[in-house]
Amino acid sequence: MSALGFAAQSATGPLERFAFERRSPRPDDVVIDILYCGVCHTDLHLARNHGGFTTYPIIPGHEIIGQVCEVGAGVARFKAGDMVGVGCMVDSCRHCKPCLNGWEQDCVEGPTFTYNGSDRQDGSITYGGYSDSIVVRDKFVLSLPEGLDPAGAAPLLCAGITTWSPMHRWNVGKGSKVAVIGLGGLGHMALKLAKALGADVTLFTRSAGKEDDAFRLGADHVVLSGDAEQMKAVAGRFDVIIDTVPYDHDVNPYMPTLALEGVLVLVGYLGPLGTPVNAGGVVRGRRAISGSFIGGVAETQQMLDFCGEHGIVSDVEIIPIQKINEAYERMLKSDVKYRFVIDMASLKS
Amino acid sequence: MSALGFAAQSATGPLERFAFERRSPRPDDVVIDILYCGVCHTDLHLARNHGGFTTYPIIPGHEIIGQVCEVGAGVARFKAGDMVGVGCMVDSCRHCKPCLNGWEQDCVEGPTFTYNGSDRQDGSITYGGYSDSIVVRDKFVLSLPEGLDPAGAAPLLCAGITTWSPMHRWNVGKGSKVAVIGLGGLGHMALKLAKALGADVTLFTRSAGKEDDAFRLGADHVVLSGDAEQMKAVAGRFDVIIDTVPYDHDVNPYMPTLALEGVLVLVGYLGPLGTPVNAGGVVRGRRAISGSFIGGVAETQQMLDFCGEHGIVSDVEIIPIQKINEAYERMLKSDVKYRFVIDMASLKS
Ligand SMILES: [Zn+2]
Ligand SMILES: [Zn+2]
Ligand SMILES: [Zn+2]
Ligand SMILES: [Zn+2]
Repeated sequence: MSALGFAAQSATGPLERFAFERRSPRPDDVVIDILYCGVCHTDLHLARNHGGFTTYPIIPGHEIIGQVCEVGAGVARFKAGDMVGVGCMVDSCRHCKPCLNGWEQDCVEGPTFTYNGSDRQDGSITYGGYSDSIVVRDKFVLSLPEGLDPAGAAPLLCAGITTWSPMHRWNVGKGSKVAVIGLGGLGHMALKLAKALGADVTLFTRSAGKEDDAFRLGADHVVLSGDAEQMKAVAGRFDVIIDTVPYDHDVNPYMPTLALEGVLVLVGYLGPLGTPVNAGGVVRGRRAISGSFIGGVAETQQMLDFCGEHGIVSDVEIIPIQKINEAYERMLKSDVKYRFVIDMASLKS
Repeated sequence: MSALGFAAQSATGPLERFAFERRSPRPDDVVIDILYCGVCHTDLHLARNHGGFTTYPIIPGHEIIGQVCEVGAGVARFKAGDMVGVGCMVDSCRHCKPCLNGWEQDCVEGPTFTYNGSDRQDGSITYGGYSDSIVVRDKFVLSLPEGLDPAGAAPLLCAGITTWSPMHRWNVGKGSKVAVIGLGGLGHMALKLAKALGADVTLFTRSAGKEDDAFRLGADHVVLSGDAEQMKAVAGRFDVIIDTVPYDHDVNPYMPTLALEGVLVLVGYLGPLGTPVNAGGVVRGRRAISGSFIGGVAETQQMLDFCGEHGIVSDVEIIPIQKINEAYERMLKSDVKYRFVIDMASLKS
């Protein structure tokens, strides 16, 4: 079936209008008309081949909200007209131990990512949400709870689940003391989710002036990470720190702010931590440095349902798709509060 | 009360015979005739002031087994003749949250260490187990289970609890897959305890030739950490890795051998990890790098009772105290299988 999107044709070129073919729906597929798609840092990194494994043309986008327009004969969970979401994955082997455990992101064979992936049946390259439609295996389609703003809900599919999953794993709940490092797309979702989970929430930030936003988003406290006095005042405080910093940084100063058996969870950075990690920071107090990578499908639905109950969506700036290249430049300067979301109706204009 | 021990008078001098005064027993004190004392790496580091905070003279020793010779009027748990142990701590504040939680090692005010510490009541410097007797607050005295060889049991008080505590915390039990890095005093205890807990046990070692010992001590498998093929063969395998390496080392190669949500626990090293830790190693698979430092008093008793039930003691080389300086030199060359224990009867000769 023919489709329209915005693609990058090379690491250095802009994203531009691109007509392409989606695969024909299979019996277990859901065909979705895309309404909104959030803009994630990964989109930019892959469009520009920062990881060195991009196949061109690439159509990014894995924070997708749309409406079902057609379902395969074997699909019972969805019907035309349903509001749905699609996140970072569109398939996995579904029989390995991680998959059976609901950890499709850890599929032993590797999950099929929503874009720049390879379809498990026909080997075709997957194309993401910067487009008018998408065809996705039903098990990887999420239900959008009623009442959630569809544009604001789009970033839940990546930024939301990425911060939800570690809080869920490390039992964040009423009375937990949670800190969030960094106030961007991930950080602002972490504040909202932690607060709604009943935690006492602190934002660590390097720069002053974020207090108003932080408090509005759910923070109970703001700590300037460069202020030794403020850091000392929160020594031994946090059960969980969600570290959303997307580049190399020194985690050592945060370790003493963890409670005994507390854990710092890296969710924004995958490279080497250039500043030597002090072993004493984890040995004393049995603290831990862990990480987390998106989340499983069932867990994502659970997060969406929670957001539905609590009326949680992302703070978004809606853009027409024609502004996507400009949006990337602004993202690089952290000039967005707090997530760009593409209104896909703009594709037709 | 007058006592006799072996002390270092300076960072460069040997340990030598030293007559000194122990404090008079208080109502909640237990007076112990020391029979055996294990020799821990910490003894050597503090005797030589490697940390820069040693007070001289120093009498090391925190793996103490002895017999009660006298108890204070307020002591009900012990009586003269009881076989007991004393570990790394002889007191703590006992009212802070960690203390109330059984984590005296994390006492907010700091625990009173068995030697080179400061008595909480009279401020006197504490002297350790390389001596004929010791006076210890009853709550910090452990019962030695019947039937355990007292010399072999001495190292349980530090090497035993240090490896037991993280296995306990991370739920090692029947069917767990546990790996141990390093085969020294800590490592050999980790093998024995993991095996008795019902785990499938692997030893990681840098050098071949340790297989026979490893299997005898409880390992089911031995993996050469420098052999890429062998490392690949155990990818994704371990729930818990107990890392006993006492110096800076690269933890990255071990991370992929952890199962999803597996944890590597540092127990032997407190300094900076010079090789940059790869964040991807914890983000993917939600793995963690944690640490552990000795253990609490109740937990130590639990470990001793477990060792009593399972007949677990350390593999020791018993030495007269006159050989302590030589023993330190041999320890530096890892020339001991696997723990020196001083027979304190030698003090009288
Ligand atoms: Zn993303
Ligand atoms: Zn799978
Ligand atoms: Zn020790
Ligand atoms: Zn305390």
